[in-house]
Amino acid sequence: MKDRRLMLSRMETLWHPRRVAMVGATNSMSKWGFIIFTRMLGEQFTGEIFPVNPRDEYVVGKKAYKSIADVPGAIDVAVVVTPAATVPGVLRELAQKKVPAAIVITSGFSETGPEGAAVEREMVEFARKAGMVLVGPNTMGTYSAGVRLNCLMAPVSPLAGRAACIAQSGNVGTHMLFRGRLRGLGFGKFVSSGNEGDLSLEDYLWYFGQDDETSAVLGYLEGLDPDSDFMRIAPEVTKKKPVILYKGGRTAAGASAAASHTGALAGDAAVFRSAMRQAGVIVAESNKEVVELARAMELSPVPKGPRVGILTRGGGWGVITSDACVEAGLEVPRLSDDTMAKLDKLLPAYWSRGNPVDMVAVLSNQAYLDCLDLVVKDPNVDAVIGLGANIDAQTNTTLETLRDQGAMDADKLRAIEEKSQTEGDEFVKALRDYLTNSPKPILSVGRWRETPDWESGLMMIGEPEDAARMMAKMAEYGRYLAGSSGKEDRPPRRQER
Amino acid sequence: MKDRRLMLSRMETLWHPRRVAMVGATNSMSKWGFIIFTRMLGEQFTGEIFPVNPRDEYVVGKKAYKSIADVPGAIDVAVVVTPAATVPGVLRELAQKKVPAAIVITSGFSETGPEGAAVEREMVEFARKAGMVLVGPNTMGTYSAGVRLNCLMAPVSPLAGRAACIAQSGNVGTHMLFRGRLRGLGFGKFVSSGNEGDLSLEDYLWYFGQDDETSAVLGYLEGLDPDSDFMRIAPEVTKKKPVILYKGGRTAAGASAAASHTGALAGDAAVFRSAMRQAGVIVAESNKEVVELARAMELSPVPKGPRVGILTRGGGWGVITSDACVEAGLEVPRLSDDTMAKLDKLLPAYWSRGNPVDMVAVLSNQAYLDCLDLVVKDPNVDAVIGLGANIDAQTNTTLETLRDQGAMDADKLRAIEEKSQTEGDEFVKALRDYLTNSPKPILSVGRWRETPDWESGLMMIGEPEDAARMMAKMAEYGRYLAGSSGKEDRPPRRQER
Repeated sequence: MKDRRLMLSRMETLWHPRRVAMVGATNSMSKWGFIIFTRMLGEQFTGEIFPVNPRDEYVVGKKAYKSIADVPGAIDVAVVVTPAATVPGVLRELAQKKVPAAIVITSGFSETGPEGAAVEREMVEFARKAGMVLVGPNTMGTYSAGVRLNCLMAPVSPLAGRAACIAQSGNVGTHMLFRGRLRGLGFGKFVSSGNEGDLSLEDYLWYFGQDDETSAVLGYLEGLDPDSDFMRIAPEVTKKKPVILYKGGRTAAGASAAASHTGALAGDAAVFRSAMRQAGVIVAESNKEVVELARAMELSPVPKGPRVGILTRGGGWGVITSDACVEAGLEVPRLSDDTMAKLDKLLPAYWSRGNPVDMVAVLSNQAYLDCLDLVVKDPNVDAVIGLGANIDAQTNTTLETLRDQGAMDADKLRAIEEKSQTEGDEFVKALRDYLTNSPKPILSVGRWRETPDWESGLMMIGEPEDAARMMAKMAEYGRYLAGSSGKEDRPPRRQER
Repeated sequence: MKDRRLMLSRMETLWHPRRVAMVGATNSMSKWGFIIFTRMLGEQFTGEIFPVNPRDEYVVGKKAYKSIADVPGAIDVAVVVTPAATVPGVLRELAQKKVPAAIVITSGFSETGPEGAAVEREMVEFARKAGMVLVGPNTMGTYSAGVRLNCLMAPVSPLAGRAACIAQSGNVGTHMLFRGRLRGLGFGKFVSSGNEGDLSLEDYLWYFGQDDETSAVLGYLEGLDPDSDFMRIAPEVTKKKPVILYKGGRTAAGASAAASHTGALAGDAAVFRSAMRQAGVIVAESNKEVVELARAMELSPVPKGPRVGILTRGGGWGVITSDACVEAGLEVPRLSDDTMAKLDKLLPAYWSRGNPVDMVAVLSNQAYLDCLDLVVKDPNVDAVIGLGANIDAQTNTTLETLRDQGAMDADKLRAIEEKSQTEGDEFVKALRDYLTNSPKPILSVGRWRETPDWESGLMMIGEPEDAARMMAKMAEYGRYLAGSSGKEDRPPRRQER
């Protein structure tokens, strides 16, 4: 088991540096030393950045230094992109400068075979003796929202927020950042863990678990070290905040592909799943699900049980959602007599009279909110999936035709258009307010006008099947929390924002 | 078993009318008689449209007629939106006018209970005696690309093409049209079958099966009539073109929801699945999958076997895709020695040396195409999943930073920007040409710049898991075709476009 007593202060520095050096920063546009350095500048790191380059006087307009030693003052973090053969020497220079943390982007170490592994082992031993933590080598970089440090290889500008992400594949991980931006999920910290020569997945998990800036931990993993203390750390974290992982290398073919690019040993899929369940870790079925689940759990409390109320504007969608809920292990209960009586008053005589609540052709936004409220408040219901809160495209195409046909004068058209726009905006706001304050989780399925999720503050899930699977996982986490706390009311009702 | 001898000519008229009347067209903006009429005008039906309204002289700028009888000349199709109680009378007027087909949007018949069912039965009997076919009642309308007839309740303007869609839920069905537009799938014909009082799912399937304008049949179904001859018709169609169905009502909860909105009886999910497999029908897992599969099969031939070659720019994505392929029942074979030797020459020494082919950090578009070609031509490979053909966003963010930092002059920046744009466009074109002419199916996973699928002529699938499931279904259909034709080379290698 690792002794992590020294690690905490190094980690703090790694995620909150004020002075960062890039060893290998360059003006040569095809090199990572240019691409990443430019990204660090572009994302407006709040501290100071020092390019280290023995030849150029300036790198992308910034005064460059011939060596680490030449940089005036202390360095908190060094980003290293020089060729593999030079890295051990760079680390010695960093140690002399007493740099506490290095992010080694450079590849060509343990992932290439025994020879590279030997070099990597020596580097790590040296770094540990020098009291320096290493990210990587062979990492695709890190991101830290608090200081706006973005030293990622991938061209992504994450939305700032409170999720932390650990990725054993940089490509898969940075894709979570892309997706997060689209879905409204903000990240506080991200690390591509690379070869994990020094810092490993469980080290980051341990740190994010106690990090007050982090509300949920996301991850993509392919393998754990046989001596890993992951199973000791994970339950400590999952009691405090959701941990959502996607696992690659579940099959022999996947494991063999994983071995070729990280050297990680993939375990048996069923064993992994059962261990994760025991540790309260939420296991996602795709990269997409990781991100959407994290965002859903940021917006919603966990359900207190498996009973889902379904609200829809179209019968078929109610059918599909019912099927998906049951197939995901949820229940679609009868609504209480009281709810039914109230819905009878709100909806036309021919409504579905059951759960799913099919509003049939009732298009009013207010009716949607009223029905939603009744379903949410039903004592038989633990969670709600609401479909089709997206009707307003209707008016726009109709108005275009009226304009083309010359069938309505321009002022009247404009007035209708503005009214429709205002009503749409008001509905977004009302729905968001309702969802934000709801004591029960609500997942919304549908398209949302032109407004992206991050702007509307809502998340519209594309498929009812996805929403059902997500709700089932949220309910399972709810059960885990209830079991582990031994209380009826679990502490992390909803994450702080 | 139905006698369909008369149906063929009626169906031809239904899908290719020249003169369409709308009974109940109105200037009252909240009514379907306004919304649908406006849509018919807006979508520029190639024939003539006659609004029938006893009070208004003009409807949305078009001269209106007091009754069907008043419309000069013959009517091919009548769209009926008047209240339920008036519909039997309207049908009598249509019969007098010898209208061969009516689309009854109006609801309030068999879906409301025994009383409505009795009225519907009488209407259908009357129509059949009069030699008139009925769509619906309680249909959300039809779309026919050939004559640009769009009489849909939903605000969707489908992409014109060669797919036909039958939907037992109008909401679910019209969503396929929305999705089709986004994914580049064009539709020739669409019908929301409604209560199926007269024309039923198997009638449309029978017609689309022999319709030369139709290259694939898509559908959402909830239930079949116990006397249905679906299982006799389906295999006749699936031998000629793909039939892709999504089934609602797989669980008791779903079936009960289906009963409440269509009265259809949902069967046992496992029985259904096995019957469909036997009939060569492709069963999709979601509405999304129906559309993406249809588009994939429009762009690609079916695989001759289950062996998938995987090309990726990021190791983790190769792992995920391998897992997903194996879990979907596909194989991830070794590549031939010849392919390996050729890849060795193309890629850096540290490439993954196996399947998946991980190009590691090789960003060149030409290298991507060259590697793709090698994997496609490998004799061990029946089909290919290519990931990450979408690198060019990189340059744009970098250039922005250079501009902000004043680190490069404006002319040079513009030149680089233009070069990047041109290279991107050329890559799209080259990739599309390659995919279009490939003798083996290739599914592409990734984001695609800003260009939507319908414009690029490519389909970028969002998730590798989706691509693997789709490929597995395509392979299963390939096996079915090979078995049913008894030949090694199956006839519908790729759909015509």
